Amino acid sequence: MLPADTKVVSVDDHIIEHPNVWQDRLAAKWRERGPLVRSEDGIPVWHYDGKRYPPLGLDAVAGDDPTEFKLDSKKFEAMRPGCYDPKHRLEDMDTDGIWASLAFPQFPRFAGQTFLEGADHELGLACVQAWNDFVLDEWCATDPARLIPLSIVPLWSAALCAAEIERTAARGARAITFTENPAALGLPSFWSDAWDPMLSALEETDTALCLHIGSSSRPIIPHADAPTPLIISLMSLLTMATLSDLVMSPVFVKHPRLKVILAEGGIGWVPYMLERLEQVWEKHRHYAKVNVAKTPAQCFRDNMWVCFIRDEAGVAARHEIGVDKILFEADYPHSDTMWPNSRVGLERALRDVPDDEARLIAGDNARRLLRIS
Amino acid sequence: MLPADTKVVSVDDHIIEHPNVWQDRLAAKWRERGPLVRSEDGIPVWHYDGKRYPPLGLDAVAGDDPTEFKLDSKKFEAMRPGCYDPKHRLEDMDTDGIWASLAFPQFPRFAGQTFLEGADHELGLACVQAWNDFVLDEWCATDPARLIPLSIVPLWSAALCAAEIERTAARGARAITFTENPAALGLPSFWSDAWDPMLSALEETDTALCLHIGSSSRPIIPHADAPTPLIISLMSLLTMATLSDLVMSPVFVKHPRLKVILAEGGIGWVPYMLERLEQVWEKHRHYAKVNVAKTPAQCFRDNMWVCFIRDEAGVAARHEIGVDKILFEADYPHSDTMWPNSRVGLERALRDVPDDEARLIAGDNARRLLRIS
Repeated sequence: MLPADTKVVSVDDHIIEHPNVWQDRLAAKWRERGPLVRSEDGIPVWHYDGKRYPPLGLDAVAGDDPTEFKLDSKKFEAMRPGCYDPKHRLEDMDTDGIWASLAFPQFPRFAGQTFLEGADHELGLACVQAWNDFVLDEWCATDPARLIPLSIVPLWSAALCAAEIERTAARGARAITFTENPAALGLPSFWSDAWDPMLSALEETDTALCLHIGSSSRPIIPHADAPTPLIISLMSLLTMATLSDLVMSPVFVKHPRLKVILAEGGIGWVPYMLERLEQVWEKHRHYAKVNVAKTPAQCFRDNMWVCFIRDEAGVAARHEIGVDKILFEADYPHSDTMWPNSRVGLERALRDVPDDEARLIAGDNARRLLRIS
Repeated sequence: MLPADTKVVSVDDHIIEHPNVWQDRLAAKWRERGPLVRSEDGIPVWHYDGKRYPPLGLDAVAGDDPTEFKLDSKKFEAMRPGCYDPKHRLEDMDTDGIWASLAFPQFPRFAGQTFLEGADHELGLACVQAWNDFVLDEWCATDPARLIPLSIVPLWSAALCAAEIERTAARGARAITFTENPAALGLPSFWSDAWDPMLSALEETDTALCLHIGSSSRPIIPHADAPTPLIISLMSLLTMATLSDLVMSPVFVKHPRLKVILAEGGIGWVPYMLERLEQVWEKHRHYAKVNVAKTPAQCFRDNMWVCFIRDEAGVAARHEIGVDKILFEADYPHSDTMWPNSRVGLERALRDVPDDEARLIAGDNARRLLRIS
């Protein structure tokens, strides 16, 4: 059972950026070309690099009745202010029973893909840094004990990624968000040596590497008739692929102190996947170029963490996953959030779990990993 | 524990066709253009419709030492005769502790894609029927109690599929193999009405629909550096997608008596996936066109079966999956087979399982489903 005094940590929430995040920070020469919002009948539509980015309706639905969920974009006024205002966010966290939150970007997308896609990467770097400064100086500064800084990185250059990791870690960032599959974005895969400078910077600064479902910009769409709920149901398969990719690869052999958080992929499938990876590794490593220094399951135990919102199968299998490898997510204000009942839902999920294990899952694992109190 | 007198049924093995399967059966006018084998330095290479099909080395490795696995094609002499000769197959099943076997095609591929890809579908239909006649008259006729007939179908026409289901069911076939994702082969998805005649024929003849991993011809390859063991590890994600696809779709609402066997996709992930599908269905069915007549988990319980070779996580979670929904596979002579230790491995997997449940999983579920003794 979850003890009443447990301070719950959510390692996966989302900031809906207010319209001035970039306009407030970019140097004068960039400002006109930087991200800005134009209202279209009250819908806040982002514009950047000549492209139009309407917001996703399902990404700001905390508290909404699911029978009224719509795919259409939402007006700012129809969102809870906690979506974009950190003071209101803290109030909504109080209501939800959540003590601390690590939050991902929205307009830049989960791994900052928007600025990779933009043609001008000098401007892109300024935009990446502006978001990070917004998170450090505005969002998290509102309550540094409860709002934990996560950075985005300039995906087009591992050297620039390393520099931004060092810059933001020195200012308090505890994690970066990166892509679950670089090759899907036209970048070198995790199997190449290209990312070594970035991965070394993460090790040296003790910064976690968050890989969020969908951060490859490549959802699994089995066919043209697949409706949104089917595509949503298959998102965690991307996380299964990322876990498998990394533990077969040389990444953890080269970077033994790396800490990877697989965000929003669920946990109930982990025992199956680790067992399957061990079987394949046992039989098939001999003819193929895969990591042979340690087994896939050992790589997972040494270097990876997995996260859940609602996952009874995963809580039941926690000993096979590792009680110290599991983190909780509130996912505010996206459609999977249980807000305002995240803590209630977590208590229910942990009702048969011993107190010491419940404390680890609900907060202490995240606290140790992200070095927060 | 698995009682010693249990007759184990494997619902997933593979026939390596001997060179005369088609040449012995095709009408004279087709024979020259039908599939034939040419030896290339002792390697039996199939030729059909102007294309060359070298055999996969990993598909005939029963009994081989995994440290000597190779991707290269194998000579016929290097294979166990049980690969292509039913008398030897029965001996290898005896050695392996397997009583009965449902076996899939090799050269036609898991769902008969080879004959879909061929330009001449009149010839293709003759080839489909020749394989089915080979299975009925030669392979299974060797011991009809132990070798259970499975048919392939002419994928390009649901009406022809229905006719072939009726023709072969009347002659004893208990299952067909079909594609896990028709759209991946350029065919209508399971969401269209196109397959209704075929699915109705399956219901009317009480024939099971087997969907084998890889039968979409679209393995999950995350990037160009992904080695074979990584691609093999991700094959079961195709089954997760197929399960999700079907239970969200109208298929089981329209065809309530349909029986689907998801072959070689494993079982340990099923509780997670069903829970996730329920969550998404609860929240997201309101704005989207998905099956709303019954929940995804109920569709699974009513219409689907899942299979395992080695899956400790799945055996531990058998009550969440449903003890009556689980089937065993020997996968002879592919690389996942435990031959000659399939029964030993199954006994080990079921060591903590009550006898009545062990009997269901090891054979009785398959016996009921396939109407065998």
